[in-house]
Amino acid sequence: MVVVASLRLPSLTSLFFASSRSTHRAPAALFRRRHSSRRQPFLAAAKFSAQSAASSPPETTEELAVNLKKSSNSSKTNQDRVITPRSQDFNAWYLDVIANAELADYGPVRGTMVIRPYGYAIWEAIQDYLNVKFKETGHSNMYFPQFIPYSFIEKEASHVEGFSPELAVVTIGGGKELEEKLVVRPTSETIVNHMFTQWIHSYRDLPLLINQWANVTRWEMRTKPFVRTLEFLWQEGHTAHATPEEAEEEAMKMIDVYTKFAYEEAAIPVVVGRKSREETFAGAVRTYTIEAMMGDRKALQAGTSHNLGQNFSRAFDTQFMDENGQRQHIWQTSWAVSTRFVGGIIMTHGDDAGLMLPPKLAPVQVVIVPIWKKDDEKAGVLNAASSAKEVLHSAGVKVKLDDSDTRTPGWKFNFWEMKGVPIRIEIGPRDVASGSVVISRRDVPGKQGKVFGISMEPSTLVEIKFTASFFSLVCSNIVDVSSYDELKEAISQGKWARGPWSASDEDEARVKEETGATIRCFPFEQPAGTKTCLMTGQPAEEIAIFAKSY
Amino acid sequence: MVVVASLRLPSLTSLFFASSRSTHRAPAALFRRRHSSRRQPFLAAAKFSAQSAASSPPETTEELAVNLKKSSNSSKTNQDRVITPRSQDFNAWYLDVIANAELADYGPVRGTMVIRPYGYAIWEAIQDYLNVKFKETGHSNMYFPQFIPYSFIEKEASHVEGFSPELAVVTIGGGKELEEKLVVRPTSETIVNHMFTQWIHSYRDLPLLINQWANVTRWEMRTKPFVRTLEFLWQEGHTAHATPEEAEEEAMKMIDVYTKFAYEEAAIPVVVGRKSREETFAGAVRTYTIEAMMGDRKALQAGTSHNLGQNFSRAFDTQFMDENGQRQHIWQTSWAVSTRFVGGIIMTHGDDAGLMLPPKLAPVQVVIVPIWKKDDEKAGVLNAASSAKEVLHSAGVKVKLDDSDTRTPGWKFNFWEMKGVPIRIEIGPRDVASGSVVISRRDVPGKQGKVFGISMEPSTLVEIKFTASFFSLVCSNIVDVSSYDELKEAISQGKWARGPWSASDEDEARVKEETGATIRCFPFEQPAGTKTCLMTGQPAEEIAIFAKSY
Repeated sequence: MVVVASLRLPSLTSLFFASSRSTHRAPAALFRRRHSSRRQPFLAAAKFSAQSAASSPPETTEELAVNLKKSSNSSKTNQDRVITPRSQDFNAWYLDVIANAELADYGPVRGTMVIRPYGYAIWEAIQDYLNVKFKETGHSNMYFPQFIPYSFIEKEASHVEGFSPELAVVTIGGGKELEEKLVVRPTSETIVNHMFTQWIHSYRDLPLLINQWANVTRWEMRTKPFVRTLEFLWQEGHTAHATPEEAEEEAMKMIDVYTKFAYEEAAIPVVVGRKSREETFAGAVRTYTIEAMMGDRKALQAGTSHNLGQNFSRAFDTQFMDENGQRQHIWQTSWAVSTRFVGGIIMTHGDDAGLMLPPKLAPVQVVIVPIWKKDDEKAGVLNAASSAKEVLHSAGVKVKLDDSDTRTPGWKFNFWEMKGVPIRIEIGPRDVASGSVVISRRDVPGKQGKVFGISMEPSTLVEIKFTASFFSLVCSNIVDVSSYDELKEAISQGKWARGPWSASDEDEARVKEETGATIRCFPFEQPAGTKTCLMTGQPAEEIAIFAKSY
Repeated sequence: MVVVASLRLPSLTSLFFASSRSTHRAPAALFRRRHSSRRQPFLAAAKFSAQSAASSPPETTEELAVNLKKSSNSSKTNQDRVITPRSQDFNAWYLDVIANAELADYGPVRGTMVIRPYGYAIWEAIQDYLNVKFKETGHSNMYFPQFIPYSFIEKEASHVEGFSPELAVVTIGGGKELEEKLVVRPTSETIVNHMFTQWIHSYRDLPLLINQWANVTRWEMRTKPFVRTLEFLWQEGHTAHATPEEAEEEAMKMIDVYTKFAYEEAAIPVVVGRKSREETFAGAVRTYTIEAMMGDRKALQAGTSHNLGQNFSRAFDTQFMDENGQRQHIWQTSWAVSTRFVGGIIMTHGDDAGLMLPPKLAPVQVVIVPIWKKDDEKAGVLNAASSAKEVLHSAGVKVKLDDSDTRTPGWKFNFWEMKGVPIRIEIGPRDVASGSVVISRRDVPGKQGKVFGISMEPSTLVEIKFTASFFSLVCSNIVDVSSYDELKEAISQGKWARGPWSASDEDEARVKEETGATIRCFPFEQPAGTKTCLMTGQPAEEIAIFAKSY
């Protein structure tokens, strides 16, 4: 795994390629906002994440309305609030960042989420990138209905076992009880196969490569904004092939698309690998995953690609006539990335000051803050700021000029840092006089992140050079273990444990029960040489990575 | 209303601006495909459109599976099928076009639709255009949950009256009966207001301008692909303002965006106006609409913009503090265009040969068909065709080169005409020799639509000039009437009737009952002078347009 990379970014416009940050720095000051007057009550928020339908009955709308009233100022203004320090309470910090940066809010129904414009813009940037990649790799978008006859879900044995506890079910339509209950899609393999059976007849109809952007519903017990919500947005690719080799190639190709996306767009280093049998998608033969390490060192499954084999084609009798005139069941894949990824971005990059967005996915990539004290300085400064904005805007940079005169520059610095804007350009009277600007990087705190005296000339402005070092949290937090004791020790320290594994599903379940950690994956990058299972002492083919996860 | 326009389009690349066609031509040959061997049974299709939950209970999945089997070849190959002549049976023609051009298919649940890649690509083109316009006019995208507490729907009196018969209701979640039933959104005004109440506090929070792209569910009795389905895709804009004037301005601005879209992108002439009280959106003060005339001269409501006044803000108590420190209810709008618009495109432009797509929204804008007889001609022809493709592709044209050698050029001509591709470029050995190509327009049949001897030079190819005449069906089919008898006569002839109207809601209901026609709108373009109500003989302020509609 590449965990340390030194990037030399050639220009401001091409900066929006991969973000960079050091995680080995002192925590930022707790209270950055001078105007903080009170602690924002995040009771409702904390309650949301801890809600459990198992331990408490669903709340009525009235109760929720009261909760929401409590936090009704959450989106009014930002200067009145603080963010819980990340090191103090990671979960509270996460919810504070989401509220303060106005990424999302709580929907009226337990476990649902409203994605607000700033959060949705991150999702749109994710969509824009992936949509192009999917089309480049030959996939077409389409749309399947979200209502699935209940009987469909029951056709594939492990699929129904995996999903039936999580279903939302429509029983009334147009004022009447329905004869067959309808499932609100938790995923679309069943209805996709139902349609594939109509569309696929011959090997000439293969491969069939499609994708849909859609909402899906899973009745989760414990929810957390972005990471796990009752309804979420995602893309789901579905493909049909004539041979198992082609299906495998497709599944690998798409986990590779996700891996590149994570590294190059989201600046999130991920471990790529295969899920254990226990953790494989309900209905898949093999599941590939990208696992990201969050700021609290828990793992987040950030994208998956499934080789479905013939499980669904046998259940739905999806056959084709091969070149020899023989009828065969098709070979399939499915793969998905969801709004959960936005949660991954927050939890990977954020710090005590708030959000820290990877440049390529940031809704605002550069904020320009003009600084003046005397009235006669204002016009010159605003002029220069507007020109800089125009130059960057024309170069395709998402730039925001914060020229309001009701806030101080210091307030604006803090505000846009909290919003995670990657680059700040400061322009004051002295800069105007010298024809230069000051640049501050969100990912490098304090003076170290500042570059002074950048020329205001358009040709220079769009060619600003940065040197960025990409230190990964992952590097120092994956521990090689050779025994179960070592594994337990690593997990108890909040780290990921990596070691040879060939033990049984029961042993895997025991690890989960005793440590809280699961096999995140068997990583594609495997060490050479003979290996001995950390649990049984028997020979092992592969190393696995264990971690606690979201 | 502008119903006749002569456009001179400067180049092939800018051709994709507004399509053009003559509707006053002889019907095309019925059976274009030489290989037609059998009539595709569209029983299942016709059944779909005529399905009525009122007259027949919902079908079981098994029954539907049988139906789908009947038409299971519908998407296999196209050369085996014919399209019902449009003049013979407009509905059968519509369903045939959808099936043959592979725009959509029937979902397993009654009234649901699968949007296939070619149909979805049209929707994506619609999204691409509108999304830019929405952002240019200051709106941000976001996402609201689709599950709405049942009690929300009941808060606004006329809203619940309008929507309660059409609701899909989730009563089971995670295997348990829910305490409060959840509505699958039929539209989002209620949940939007619930959230606006959290977010809006001061006049400084206004205007709040948002939009979401989403699926919505309405339990329709009679369904028809694209036009009316149980679940459909749309965008819904929602805005909040400090004054009624601003809300009115916004509602007008957005119906104007839709009007320009209809004319300039979809090449659909529409009548823009205000809905009658009876036809106003459930919960709105005023509804503005664009009404399009389909090929069978029925009206299609193709987009609406609602001034909601304070109806929802009073129901949800959405208030703000104005500049004088007074609490006031906000003023709101909402506006929507849906996948129904794709149905409007099919029914406006299509002909007996199949689909006819407006250039700007066509998934394939130009198809190149190479023609060769002898083997020694093939390489030269394919070479020239590839070059032409590259030139157009680089110029941003969506171009397809159909170089398969299993089909004849004639078969390809028919196939791509059926798929509605606006421009065909033919390249044969003689064209290669003379360095030129032949161009055929989809909207002008036969030799009239052909232009010979266009130079193959890249600079010429992207600068091809067309003269297009834009004859509208609307022009000759709106009849001015001054009495109820004249109105009845016009409607019975399948035309739209336009006349002064100041009669009661009861009279409006009577017209509907006796003629099947409704007031489509009071058009914005009103004649000058005094008017006398066609029904009552009393003075009238406005003329209304009556028509049968989808």
